[in-house]
Amino acid sequence: MPELRKDIINSNYVIFSSQRGKRPNDYKDKNQPCPFCPGNEFDTPPEIFSVKDKHNNWKIRVVSNKYPALTKVKDIEDNKNNLYEKISGFGIHEVIIETPCHNQEIEKLDINDILEIFDVYSRRFEALKKEKGIKQVIIFKNHGEYAGASLKHPHSQVVAMPILTEKAKKEIFNLKKYFSKNKSCAFCDMIRMEQKENKRIIEENEDFIAFEPFASRFCFETWILPKRHLCDFESQENNLKSLVNIYKKTMNKLSFSIKDISYNMIIYSSPTGLKNKKFFHWRIEILPKLARLAGFEWGSGFYINSISPEKAAQILNQGLTQK
Amino acid sequence: MPELRKDIINSNYVIFSSQRGKRPNDYKDKNQPCPFCPGNEFDTPPEIFSVKDKHNNWKIRVVSNKYPALTKVKDIEDNKNNLYEKISGFGIHEVIIETPCHNQEIEKLDINDILEIFDVYSRRFEALKKEKGIKQVIIFKNHGEYAGASLKHPHSQVVAMPILTEKAKKEIFNLKKYFSKNKSCAFCDMIRMEQKENKRIIEENEDFIAFEPFASRFCFETWILPKRHLCDFESQENNLKSLVNIYKKTMNKLSFSIKDISYNMIIYSSPTGLKNKKFFHWRIEILPKLARLAGFEWGSGFYINSISPEKAAQILNQGLTQK
Repeated sequence: MPELRKDIINSNYVIFSSQRGKRPNDYKDKNQPCPFCPGNEFDTPPEIFSVKDKHNNWKIRVVSNKYPALTKVKDIEDNKNNLYEKISGFGIHEVIIETPCHNQEIEKLDINDILEIFDVYSRRFEALKKEKGIKQVIIFKNHGEYAGASLKHPHSQVVAMPILTEKAKKEIFNLKKYFSKNKSCAFCDMIRMEQKENKRIIEENEDFIAFEPFASRFCFETWILPKRHLCDFESQENNLKSLVNIYKKTMNKLSFSIKDISYNMIIYSSPTGLKNKKFFHWRIEILPKLARLAGFEWGSGFYINSISPEKAAQILNQGLTQK
Repeated sequence: MPELRKDIINSNYVIFSSQRGKRPNDYKDKNQPCPFCPGNEFDTPPEIFSVKDKHNNWKIRVVSNKYPALTKVKDIEDNKNNLYEKISGFGIHEVIIETPCHNQEIEKLDINDILEIFDVYSRRFEALKKEKGIKQVIIFKNHGEYAGASLKHPHSQVVAMPILTEKAKKEIFNLKKYFSKNKSCAFCDMIRMEQKENKRIIEENEDFIAFEPFASRFCFETWILPKRHLCDFESQENNLKSLVNIYKKTMNKLSFSIKDISYNMIIYSSPTGLKNKKFFHWRIEILPKLARLAGFEWGSGFYINSISPEKAAQILNQGLTQK
C-alpha cells in the first residue's frame, strides 16, 4: 500500500508506491492489449459509473485506478519524528476513460461529446470533495510519452488527497497576501491585465479567456480561466458549453502548431476546507512538454523557457508551426 | 539577452532565453562536430582557465557558456508591478569541460584525474561567490538524454545567480527552524540517523557518507554529505581525495545497476550572504532519471517513486540490475 513521506528540508511529499511501477506502458510494449478499449472492461477495476449512448454502449467510464498512487485503505501508523515523517497513503485515485475510441483526439470530438466529458469532471470534483478526510482534489490528463503518459487511449485521472499540498498552501498564501494588499483576486486582475496588454491571449469568449501566462514555465504553456470570479470548477454557475468551446479552439491551435504534442492538462478547483472564497479562482493549466528539466532547474528551482509567451501567442494565433 | 520573470502566484522564477533554444543537440543531430573535443576549441567562447598535462595539452577547460541562461550584461530595467515582475537576467554561466575524451565516463577515470575535476569545482565556487551581485552559485551536471543533456562530451556547468532562489530560501527557512528547535544541524542529525538505521547507506568512509534519502523523489536518488559539519564545498577543510573516493564508488554502483543511466548531479554550497553557518551543510545530490514527471506531480507538487530508498540501497549494494 502506498506510503507518504515528507522531506522536511524541502517540504516535499513523496508517495512510495511499488504498484505504480507495474503499470503497463504502450510506449515500451507496443503489442499489449489496451485495458481501456471496449471488450477489455474486465481489465479495469469495477466501474464507478458510466455515460451511455442510445444503444446502451458506454461513451465514458469512470473506474478506480488499478495502480493507484493513493488508496482508501489506511494500513500504516502515522510516524512523525523530528526528521523523518511517514503517513499512510490514504486517498482516492480514479481514471476517466473519455471515449471508447483508442486513437480519438478529444479536441476533435463534437462539442456535445466534449461537454459530456467536462460534465463528468464536474461531477467527480463534486463527489470526491465530499468524501471524508479529503482536503484537495485535482483532475489531470497526461497526453503523449514526453508528458509521462503510459497508455495512449484518451483518459484523465482524478486524485483526492488527504492533505493540502505544499504547492496549494504556497499558492493560497500568495493569493491571500495579494488580496489583502490589493482588495482584489490576483487572477481577476491578471485577466484584466491580459485584456489590456493583449499580446498573450489565445482565445476569448463571453465567459472564458485562454492565454500564455506572463511567467510561462514551459514553451506554449496555456491557462484557461473563467472571466467571472468563480472558485469551483464544479459550480453550477460555470457555463460548461462555453468552456468546451474555448477548450476545443485552444487545444486545436496547440496541436496544429506543435507536431505530435505531448502535454499535461491540470484542473485546479478550490480545496475542500477553504472558507474565504474571495481570492481563489479555478483554472485549467495546459503544459506542453517540448524539453526536459535538467540540473539547473532541479538545483535552482528556476525554469528556463526558450520561447516567450508573447512569441508563443504569435505562433499559435498565426497558425505557424513550431520548429 | 535573458530576462527573469516571477510568477507571483507560485513564487516561481522563469528565465526567458531564446539563445538556449539554439543549442546544438547530440541526441537530435548525431553528425555534428563536438564543440568540446580537442581541435574544436574555436567553437567555444574564450577559455577562462584550463588544467594542462605535462605535454601542455589541456585536460580540463573552463569556458563561458555559449548559450547562457544568465549573462553579465544588465540590459533591461527592472520592472515590478503588483502582478508581473521582470528583472534583468544577470549572472554568470560557465561550462567545465572535464576531459578531452568524448566518450569518457568520469567515474572510470583514475582518482587523481577526478580529483583535478573536483578541485576545479572548488575553485569555481570560490571565484564566483566573490563576484559582485552574486547571491548563490550551483554546479551541476546533466548526463544522458533523459536528464536533459544536449551534448554527450563530459562536462559540468556553473551558474552564479543574482538572487537567492525560492528553493534555497525555503530550505534555509526549514533548516533554521530545525536548528532552533533541536539545537543541531538537520543534515548532521540525518547522518546519525542513517548510520543508526543502516538501511539506506551506499558508501561510507572516514569523511563522507553516501545514502538514499528517506524521502527520495526519484528512484535511486543518492546524496553525498561530509560527515563533519561543513557548509562550503570550497572549504579547505574538505578532504577532496576522500570525496573523490566515495563519489567514484557510488557512481560506479549506480551505473552498474542502472543500464545507460541518465542523471543530474548537483552540488549545493552555502549562499554568499549566509552569516550563520551552523545550520547549512553542503551536499551533492545525484538524481537518476528513470521516469518522467506527469500531471499528478505538476498539479500536486508531490513526487511518486516506485522504488523505496531501502529497496534501492539493497539493489545497489548487492550489485543487482534494475529492470
